[in-house]
Amino acid sequence: MSSSDFELHPRLWADTQHIAALPLCELLLMKDSRFPWLILVPRVAGCTEIFDLPEQARALLWQEINQVAKALRDVAPCDKLNIGALGNIVRQLHVHIVARKEGDAAWPGPVWGHGRAEPYQDDALSSLVQTLQSAFRT
Amino acid sequence: MSSSDFELHPRLWADTQHIAALPLCELLLMKDSRFPWLILVPRVAGCTEIFDLPEQARALLWQEINQVAKALRDVAPCDKLNIGALGNIVRQLHVHIVARKEGDAAWPGPVWGHGRAEPYQDDALSSLVQTLQSAFRT
Repeated sequence: MSSSDFELHPRLWADTQHIAALPLCELLLMKDSRFPWLILVPRVAGCTEIFDLPEQARALLWQEINQVAKALRDVAPCDKLNIGALGNIVRQLHVHIVARKEGDAAWPGPVWGHGRAEPYQDDALSSLVQTLQSAFRT
Repeated sequence: MSSSDFELHPRLWADTQHIAALPLCELLLMKDSRFPWLILVPRVAGCTEIFDLPEQARALLWQEINQVAKALRDVAPCDKLNIGALGNIVRQLHVHIVARKEGDAAWPGPVWGHGRAEPYQDDALSSLVQTLQSAFRT
């Protein structure tokens, strides 16, 4: 396992917009306007489960999950955050952080596998990406 | 927030079997034979999001998630673990750790909100509870 061998899974490339490179993870925005939905992908090759990560990286992942969850709730006020590491379809370790509102398209069910993604309008996407990038600028 | 005011949500009581009291969390088994499915509930009153926990408790939660995920995979070999903190229905902070197999009842979708729980046979439940309790006996 090393970061030099890391390559983002093509499905994650296709479905997301890059927001920031955090110390451990790439931070991505899911291109689905139904839900403010971020994904963290540790830049460590060959990991499927969280416990596959070396201990220090795991500690950093928890910190970044925490930081991103707080920032997402500030940018997209919500009734509940949903945090999940599933990976049934894309095995490369990645963690979803989704801002949920009562009555949203999948409420109260999970977002994963629910219907089809609805693309953002270009302006809305640029504006959200800018806001998120500002929140993660170090 | 304090552990003395903590009471397990009635829905979690009803849907689960108690396995162990870990240093931070109650460890519960979901009474659904379709999936080996554990739930961690921090004994801290008034928490909804993971970042509501005090920092030390949060660090302990991550450790317990890690420990439980590893132990569950030993007890119930699987193709993928699914870890999730949702809480759209039960707001009391709780974390799901589910052992998934290709072709299981909800594969490759998430287990949450998928169909109806199927009760364990009494013998199968006792045996699984014993195995899990042995794994967490300190």
